[in-house]
Amino acid sequence: MKIAVDAMGGDFAPDATIQGAGLAVKQFAEEDRLVLIGIEDVVRQKLEQFNISDDRIEILHAPDVIDMGEHPTRAISQKQNASIPVGFRLLKSREVQGFCSAGNTGAMHVGAMFSIKAIEGVIRPGIAGFVPKENGGFGIIMDVGANADCKPDVLFQFGEIGSMYANRVLGIDEPKVGLMNLGEEEQKGTLLMQAAHQLFKITNKVNFIGNIEGCDVFNDKADVIVCDGFTGNVILKLAESFFDMIQSRKIRNEYFDRFNYEEIGGSPILGVNGNVVIGHGKSSPKAIENMIMLTHRMAESNLYLTLKEYFTD
Amino acid sequence: MKIAVDAMGGDFAPDATIQGAGLAVKQFAEEDRLVLIGIEDVVRQKLEQFNISDDRIEILHAPDVIDMGEHPTRAISQKQNASIPVGFRLLKSREVQGFCSAGNTGAMHVGAMFSIKAIEGVIRPGIAGFVPKENGGFGIIMDVGANADCKPDVLFQFGEIGSMYANRVLGIDEPKVGLMNLGEEEQKGTLLMQAAHQLFKITNKVNFIGNIEGCDVFNDKADVIVCDGFTGNVILKLAESFFDMIQSRKIRNEYFDRFNYEEIGGSPILGVNGNVVIGHGKSSPKAIENMIMLTHRMAESNLYLTLKEYFTD
Repeated sequence: MKIAVDAMGGDFAPDATIQGAGLAVKQFAEEDRLVLIGIEDVVRQKLEQFNISDDRIEILHAPDVIDMGEHPTRAISQKQNASIPVGFRLLKSREVQGFCSAGNTGAMHVGAMFSIKAIEGVIRPGIAGFVPKENGGFGIIMDVGANADCKPDVLFQFGEIGSMYANRVLGIDEPKVGLMNLGEEEQKGTLLMQAAHQLFKITNKVNFIGNIEGCDVFNDKADVIVCDGFTGNVILKLAESFFDMIQSRKIRNEYFDRFNYEEIGGSPILGVNGNVVIGHGKSSPKAIENMIMLTHRMAESNLYLTLKEYFTD
Repeated sequence: MKIAVDAMGGDFAPDATIQGAGLAVKQFAEEDRLVLIGIEDVVRQKLEQFNISDDRIEILHAPDVIDMGEHPTRAISQKQNASIPVGFRLLKSREVQGFCSAGNTGAMHVGAMFSIKAIEGVIRPGIAGFVPKENGGFGIIMDVGANADCKPDVLFQFGEIGSMYANRVLGIDEPKVGLMNLGEEEQKGTLLMQAAHQLFKITNKVNFIGNIEGCDVFNDKADVIVCDGFTGNVILKLAESFFDMIQSRKIRNEYFDRFNYEEIGGSPILGVNGNVVIGHGKSSPKAIENMIMLTHRMAESNLYLTLKEYFTD
């Protein structure tokens, strides 16, 4: 298996990305390869600086760099030799089985849509986020920002895709799918959520447990939390700030430690023809390590092929 | 000043409401009055049971009771002699200067809209929620559930109303108004938020500081957080669940203690012709006490008259 990582992506790249790559590659199998995409001289120099030498590491030169603040569509079309477009070309040609970056989130999303493209039948691919559940596992929220405005059928597909991720990657049997809303009753909430509720209710495609509320994000009610990207983004950032507040007050607690984005690694783009993970902009070496390992796990499960089969039927 | 409280409203009524009333009335001025609305025999018996005897307490008999799960509009129209409709009649006739209940939230909202009604010029009254800020004060979120679907001009008015609350009741000079969104840039987010952003930007009516994100709920960026009732409801319930998770792990911290809903007391309905506060369904005596005191403070500031003047211009 071959995984590509954007060596130039993230607030602390290339230092954090190269160090993270060094940590991740140690967990790779003998035949696995890790491709570092970036400005070759810089990557080589950083590998040397951090004393990283491993036969499983390859370097692929990408002379351009897309900055964090750049307009995604413009950057992708104008900087075809930056690490992100190069990574997607590798993924599209199946030279690598997974690609991840802690760089420009928009460029990663646009890059995925333009290169490997949405799986046929998937209306809108989404970005999945993870939340630590009080019962010990992780819940998946979809979408967390790719689609601010959603239609009911898009939300329904998020339920299907999230359910499959929870089953195939997180190993949850019959994942419970909950629709984020402001009350339990089916007539509650926005027109969007009312319509989405009915879609879930009349089909037997997922294990729909009904509406859930803001207070259910961390409990056992749902394994898959379905919402539009606007709401999911607010939830994820709120949970993150909660972790920061706990940390800054030096409160140590096993459960709250699991809120650490570094442990989670990143957010997969689901519903596209390949295994893609977006890391947090502020990624530390540890976060990069976990982003690469999450991409590795996704490549192992090859969830996108299962999704492709599912949506073709 | 005369404040009315629904003695029958809340999961733990009438025990919690009567005990809370007993705690609150001690803080009332000599000439203030607290009107307990409910089934007279029950109220009298509970006052006796909890050894509460105070000349400032009056009892008003309301033979019917609206349950927590009842359909708001139906309940309000069919049970005209329940504590909630009776309370609104007192408020409408100006016999009391404030009314509060920890009972059926929907019935409180519908009751306000049908009796004292929206202030002329206010498109949609909203429910305000409070969040403890890391800098020591409280922030106001509007709306937290009355209006799941909003139009841009409704959000703009939430900014105006919230700003006035923050100024007149919380004592904040030039309150900073932030629009909840998934990114800082003005072109980010849902079509609703993009349009609302422009409305805030082209007027000078409030101190608009731009978009804020989920991670900014507790920091100093905005005093007033503007969002639709769907998003606000999710935020508020998520914040509540944080507090519960902290409590259940026996973590004590001065800042997190301020997340306790009991200290906050309740959520005012803003934009209607009177001072109305909705308490939490699970209100304890302490929560009821603070709900009554919040209603008292609102009655002192008579914010609704200021809003009336503002929207008449």
